[in-house]
Amino acid sequence: MSDFVFNAWYAAGFPGEIGEGLLARRLLGLPVLLYRTEAGAAVAMLDRCPHRFAYLTKGRRLGDEVECVYHGLRFNAAGRCTRSPYQEQTPDIRIRTFPLVERDGIAWIWMGEAALADPADIPDHSHMYAPGYRTITGYQSYKGDWQLCNDNLMDLTHLFWLHTSTIGGYKEEAGPAPGEEYLVRQEGERIVGRNLTPNVTRAGVADNGVPPGVAYDQWNDIIWSCPSSIRFDIHAAPAGRRDVKPYMMQSHLMTPAGPAETHYFWTAVRSFDQDPANDAKWAKFFGGIFDAEDGPMMEDIEAQMEGRDLMDMRPVILPRDKGAIMARRTVARRLAAERGDLAAAE
Amino acid sequence: MSDFVFNAWYAAGFPGEIGEGLLARRLLGLPVLLYRTEAGAAVAMLDRCPHRFAYLTKGRRLGDEVECVYHGLRFNAAGRCTRSPYQEQTPDIRIRTFPLVERDGIAWIWMGEAALADPADIPDHSHMYAPGYRTITGYQSYKGDWQLCNDNLMDLTHLFWLHTSTIGGYKEEAGPAPGEEYLVRQEGERIVGRNLTPNVTRAGVADNGVPPGVAYDQWNDIIWSCPSSIRFDIHAAPAGRRDVKPYMMQSHLMTPAGPAETHYFWTAVRSFDQDPANDAKWAKFFGGIFDAEDGPMMEDIEAQMEGRDLMDMRPVILPRDKGAIMARRTVARRLAAERGDLAAAE
Amino acid sequence: MSDFVFNAWYAAGFPGEIGEGLLARRLLGLPVLLYRTEAGAAVAMLDRCPHRFAYLTKGRRLGDEVECVYHGLRFNAAGRCTRSPYQEQTPDIRIRTFPLVERDGIAWIWMGEAALADPADIPDHSHMYAPGYRTITGYQSYKGDWQLCNDNLMDLTHLFWLHTSTIGGYKEEAGPAPGEEYLVRQEGERIVGRNLTPNVTRAGVADNGVPPGVAYDQWNDIIWSCPSSIRFDIHAAPAGRRDVKPYMMQSHLMTPAGPAETHYFWTAVRSFDQDPANDAKWAKFFGGIFDAEDGPMMEDIEAQMEGRDLMDMRPVILPRDKGAIMARRTVARRLAAERGDLAAAE
Repeated sequence: MSDFVFNAWYAAGFPGEIGEGLLARRLLGLPVLLYRTEAGAAVAMLDRCPHRFAYLTKGRRLGDEVECVYHGLRFNAAGRCTRSPYQEQTPDIRIRTFPLVERDGIAWIWMGEAALADPADIPDHSHMYAPGYRTITGYQSYKGDWQLCNDNLMDLTHLFWLHTSTIGGYKEEAGPAPGEEYLVRQEGERIVGRNLTPNVTRAGVADNGVPPGVAYDQWNDIIWSCPSSIRFDIHAAPAGRRDVKPYMMQSHLMTPAGPAETHYFWTAVRSFDQDPANDAKWAKFFGGIFDAEDGPMMEDIEAQMEGRDLMDMRPVILPRDKGAIMARRTVARRLAAERGDLAAAE
Repeated sequence: MSDFVFNAWYAAGFPGEIGEGLLARRLLGLPVLLYRTEAGAAVAMLDRCPHRFAYLTKGRRLGDEVECVYHGLRFNAAGRCTRSPYQEQTPDIRIRTFPLVERDGIAWIWMGEAALADPADIPDHSHMYAPGYRTITGYQSYKGDWQLCNDNLMDLTHLFWLHTSTIGGYKEEAGPAPGEEYLVRQEGERIVGRNLTPNVTRAGVADNGVPPGVAYDQWNDIIWSCPSSIRFDIHAAPAGRRDVKPYMMQSHLMTPAGPAETHYFWTAVRSFDQDPANDAKWAKFFGGIFDAEDGPMMEDIEAQMEGRDLMDMRPVILPRDKGAIMARRTVARRLAAERGDLAAAE
Repeated sequence: MSDFVFNAWYAAGFPGEIGEGLLARRLLGLPVLLYRTEAGAAVAMLDRCPHRFAYLTKGRRLGDEVECVYHGLRFNAAGRCTRSPYQEQTPDIRIRTFPLVERDGIAWIWMGEAALADPADIPDHSHMYAPGYRTITGYQSYKGDWQLCNDNLMDLTHLFWLHTSTIGGYKEEAGPAPGEEYLVRQEGERIVGRNLTPNVTRAGVADNGVPPGVAYDQWNDIIWSCPSSIRFDIHAAPAGRRDVKPYMMQSHLMTPAGPAETHYFWTAVRSFDQDPANDAKWAKFFGGIFDAEDGPMMEDIEAQMEGRDLMDMRPVILPRDKGAIMARRTVARRLAAERGDLAAAE
């Protein structure tokens, strides 16, 4: 079981999910109300009336205000009470709101100390709008610790076993190929890396723009940002060439719902198959793989953990865990710093 | 999460439920066996054989005795063992029984110190048999702390929001009307109060005996008795008049089953619609409102509490919470007194 | 809730269950992988890859090796890692294996200190292959403490009440008959006993080889071995005679899955009805009784325990509990000894 990093930007959802209705979503262990004002501003507020703790999302909107369904208290988009029906003077009550920024097709929420929320710290996912690419988004979830998905994505060798029949398309060569590269380096609170496999002869998801029968190099450039933002740029090029644009870019954004429940927001930005009619097919394809293969694996590991912290179980560390372990150490430093435990943070 | 007040009379059920069969009901965290002797006395006993802890309710009756289904031990209505088959001398074993009094159409149980059980302390619900009225009873339950239903019923302003489409019939005037009265006063361990709304023009449940189109005064007289007995007398009369009998009287009796599970026994005694054929319709109407509106609300609050005590979450207190807060304070004093914590009880 | 005795042989299953596939079974709170090598040896191994804790049973067999489905690590039947794909030198990793011995038609596992595992300590269930008898096996389970089934089987008087309509065939005489014998004695960590009822006139399961209308003596010889192996030899003979072979022999083997979940492996070895076509009928008969009568009773008791230890609830001890109490005391001594608590063990 991991604690949560609070002073960070997390995906609360996609902008298109936030609208006229009152959307309930559990984030970092708290119930959150999401809606959009008539002027178009996205609002995030604790989904809990301060009077008797009803969920505000069970109430109704009146213009930009929200009325509690239990005893009629009203709150504006700043969380301030605007009406307490049986009280002459409206009381000075405020519900906690959370900074929310919509950028790169993601609604980013900050649930820590509001004074520390700086939109400049939002990780870059601007590939969502890259010209010449077609973008889909998806949402899955799993019942497990949020860091398990960092571990999963930071070690892509799992493609050749867990995903052998879906996207791990060249299983017979599973294992290191001659000339294979695996590079990860820490850059502040980010980890930047590359996985490169040379001489791939069987395409995975798409033909990657390489003519059939030609051996090509395939590589993923990866940027992980603390605590749980991952971006992949996936390339393929004739052997030895590196001067190509990615044929697919992906965002993987994990937001803890609670101690053993994780939201997983993802995007896939493709240069191949520009037919909008195929978007749903691709969304089902990627979502289906997660639901059938990754999600159950992380739920299995959660079951094995039985409430323990994964690192306390002393996992064997292999060379390709380097990125995942760097990420866990970065998270551990942040958690220690948030606890004010400066000694441990160093 | 609230503790339980033990030294109090609680509704264990309705007399008609207790008969030849062995009825199992969880009350204040304990399994209780209820049955009626051949002479007609209602019996309440711990539903647990002292030998291997089988539920006695899984066994069978032999006259007024109960035989355990596991190894055949028999107990009489006083809980005394009358046969242990493989023992020459019947052992001196007694199962705990509980004082049970049937009064006002309710079976009242005392699960605290038996020496303190005084039937004179049973709250008055004699309206159950008021001449000229027709009485129905009902049972619902919810997964939540028992005090949440006190809170719910002691602040009737929730009718205008939570029940707006069912019994909160005059929503457009929601909020205090000119001349509205809200009175509550402590009388020992009871709280007595009145809610009065003048100039009501739209009937709620019934036409209340007031001609259509005539503005009338509506008021509820309420008596709460510690820990969880509530009685409403609901009146309507032409403006300014008070000399009328209630058109409906209600009992609301909450008995904790366990820490987050509550039995809710209720009665509705009506002066309108004396047709017995409509009893089932009214029972479905009132029970349905609770199941659709009140019960889910209390389960939501229980979820928000996450095992905490509601008052420890520092709810905002509004003027119309006065009755509910007086009730909570009365309960808190009783709990402290039962714990022998005299300092806290003062 | 009972702790587990670890230094003991437990039934992990029946040999026929262990084969080519990767069988997952939870034993003593741990996930265990069971399979059989090509040479026919049964293997038991912790079902947890030491790298990221995936269940090995979700992977695949490659000859006698098992490959983890997550990142491709391979382990041989001794639990030793034989391949870590992205590592030049295969790391010196070992998964814990458990001694497993197939004897008397049972696969026995030892989950304590391997150095203490001595197959000579496996309790004798050789009646499984007795000539002239026909053997069936069965598996049931219940959600309850493992010792509850010891208690259940060590006091057979429950037949006359819990099983009155199934195998407790002479209910009207329930209770001690003249000349009835109940003998139990401790022999090291075994308890050996006899229950004898004289003058039985109504057969239970079978006619027991005694002509109809003839009163006969019926007796069970019982051997309990610590912690949870029970063997019954069930006899019937004309009054006063003892020189007969049992008409049925049974094994009852309880293996804790977890704190409140128990595997129950059983066998029934009969001298009557030698028709193989009836095996399924008998298996359904015995299994059905457990599932309808014993299992629910033990789950009821588990519910009454609410996480407590049964003995801490101070059950009334009756004369026929002697065997069950001797068994519980033997288990308590073993648990204390395993904890190194020598004082308590004496």
